[in-house]
Amino acid sequence: MREEMVMAGDTTITVIGNLTDDPELRFTPSGAAVAKFRVASTPRFMDKASGEWKDGEPLFLACTVWRQAAEHVAESLQRGARVIVSGRLRQRSYETREGEKRTVIELEVDEIGPSLRYATAKVQKMSRSGGGGFGASGGGGGGGGGAPGGGGNFDDPWATAAPAASRPAGSGGGGNFDDEPPF
Amino acid sequence: MREEMVMAGDTTITVIGNLTDDPELRFTPSGAAVAKFRVASTPRFMDKASGEWKDGEPLFLACTVWRQAAEHVAESLQRGARVIVSGRLRQRSYETREGEKRTVIELEVDEIGPSLRYATAKVQKMSRSGGGGFGASGGGGGGGGGAPGGGGNFDDPWATAAPAASRPAGSGGGGNFDDEPPF
Amino acid sequence: MREEMVMAGDTTITVIGNLTDDPELRFTPSGAAVAKFRVASTPRFMDKASGEWKDGEPLFLACTVWRQAAEHVAESLQRGARVIVSGRLRQRSYETREGEKRTVIELEVDEIGPSLRYATAKVQKMSRSGGGGFGASGGGGGGGGGAPGGGGNFDDPWATAAPAASRPAGSGGGGNFDDEPPF
Amino acid sequence: MREEMVMAGDTTITVIGNLTDDPELRFTPSGAAVAKFRVASTPRFMDKASGEWKDGEPLFLACTVWRQAAEHVAESLQRGARVIVSGRLRQRSYETREGEKRTVIELEVDEIGPSLRYATAKVQKMSRSGGGGFGASGGGGGGGGGAPGGGGNFDDPWATAAPAASRPAGSGGGGNFDDEPPF
Repeated sequence: MREEMVMAGDTTITVIGNLTDDPELRFTPSGAAVAKFRVASTPRFMDKASGEWKDGEPLFLACTVWRQAAEHVAESLQRGARVIVSGRLRQRSYETREGEKRTVIELEVDEIGPSLRYATAKVQKMSRSGGGGFGASGGGGGGGGGAPGGGGNFDDPWATAAPAASRPAGSGGGGNFDDEPPF
Repeated sequence: MREEMVMAGDTTITVIGNLTDDPELRFTPSGAAVAKFRVASTPRFMDKASGEWKDGEPLFLACTVWRQAAEHVAESLQRGARVIVSGRLRQRSYETREGEKRTVIELEVDEIGPSLRYATAKVQKMSRSGGGGFGASGGGGGGGGGAPGGGGNFDDPWATAAPAASRPAGSGGGGNFDDEPPF
Repeated sequence: MREEMVMAGDTTITVIGNLTDDPELRFTPSGAAVAKFRVASTPRFMDKASGEWKDGEPLFLACTVWRQAAEHVAESLQRGARVIVSGRLRQRSYETREGEKRTVIELEVDEIGPSLRYATAKVQKMSRSGGGGFGASGGGGGGGGGAPGGGGNFDDPWATAAPAASRPAGSGGGGNFDDEPPF
Repeated sequence: MREEMVMAGDTTITVIGNLTDDPELRFTPSGAAVAKFRVASTPRFMDKASGEWKDGEPLFLACTVWRQAAEHVAESLQRGARVIVSGRLRQRSYETREGEKRTVIELEVDEIGPSLRYATAKVQKMSRSGGGGFGASGGGGGGGGGAPGGGGNFDDPWATAAPAASRPAGSGGGGNFDDEPPF
């Protein structure tokens, strides 16, 4: 079972944007939930010529959230939802099928919620499930629930995707966070 | 009517915590909604003697949110709700009834949502009301909807509270953000 | 000797502003350095009438920095210096001499440096002093070096200031962070 | 000449880390300075088995800083320097020489300074050069000095690098931020 990590010196960040798709929920072999999704954040700038606000180039960030929060995200948020996401930037390296090394920057989510700027929300408090770890320990603290930053060989439900050869061509269904660039 | 402000150099911050009370909703004479509430954020620290996480001293921040989001906050969040709040730190000076000058630091909210760490949420998208300004202009941008930082003499629904003498004893209902310390 | 704390769920913040005074350096009875100073951060807003940027109301934040960094701050920064400060918001309660309870929000500094926006800097690397703790442990990490958040009764060099009666009238020299509002 | 941009809704971030190389300074045809460098930020985590802090996987971020600050950075900071950098995350797409589309996330720097955690600094205030724009307008504000987020076709000194064929073999000197992944 994944252990709770105590981290220091992480690069924390808050992103406000919209989900580009429905969150994708999976479970590790040991039963821990993990959800992935991408957030598009579009800055705006004042166009001096027209005197109007215009959209800048959006920033897309792949996000991962673990455990109870992962299930809540999958249940509560859909494609297009405007969210506030707070977490830590992480860099991940991988090899493409052609053997090229790539690196992507992703967000390990500490806390996420639907924005109330253009929406209302009916909030339903859930009982805190057992299983130890920070999430079950009470009051809360944003820095708690993350994946290991140093180790790496923990249960990864995306890592267990079938090898490329056995997948139908062009499927891209599962595993697309781990063997492809973020978008 | 309040004008949208273009600001630079603000001190932005994200706070994760719980509402200490139900949000308090008011309207300016010109009809703009504004909600106030306080968020308690409790850090946790590892107690070396016991090897357990313990609560640190909480941080309390008075928060103000404007317009459509204010109405959504009042409708969606209750006392105790865990939230993610993103905004800009503001300092406000005032005089007590005894003529003492005081200063408080508050949070001008840009974006807020219920945390999905221990809860689910049923999100209901609202049509964006007219009235001009950034909120109605489309895509988004977190830095948009704030109160003037420099001026100050805009419509303040709390500033119009009846003087202390005319309030029923023990009311404490209104005005308590503007003539008292934040808690 | 102060122990390094492991914290989670702190409210982190970055402030850019100018020192209102020279930093004030002290030492705990056990020899740990601690420096205090105040940063004024002035947002700017676009005045629609004139089409020009104007200063908003400044935010003042009392800051505390510990150990080696405290000595470096005292040696490197003077009143007026523009700085980038990264740390955690802390709330502190105290009683005035009249017995009134007050609360202030302050910044526990994790990392600080002079801004290069309007200045150059000749950087001199210092050997990392011993004494254990995070600071001596190598690579870095921003979240490391703070004061205890939960305990409170650690060595406080400001707490040992002479009682009010024994100070010359109007001195205000020492101790002014602990028995008075931040400014 | 580049115009100052007014932006809203940017994703701001503070990174603490070390320069992986000396900053690289260039000038646009119109004379604006721009410096590029990369920051490596290494989180630390508590290894439960050994009870010791260990290094996590570092995060590398390519950073761009403009105008006067660019010159100050080039003059003040060298490879290895520990810095605090505050800015806005930006996404940039480009094509490799093989015609593949790639995307990188970079940091548009608003403010940077050498960290005083392990170093002292002799700060030298510079007169603020003319030329208009936010940098020359006085007090300051962190959100000011950036490159256009929406337009794109401003002067780009890296874009004018000679094509690959005409560069001496193994040079790699210029242009390596614009036609290659960030590291």
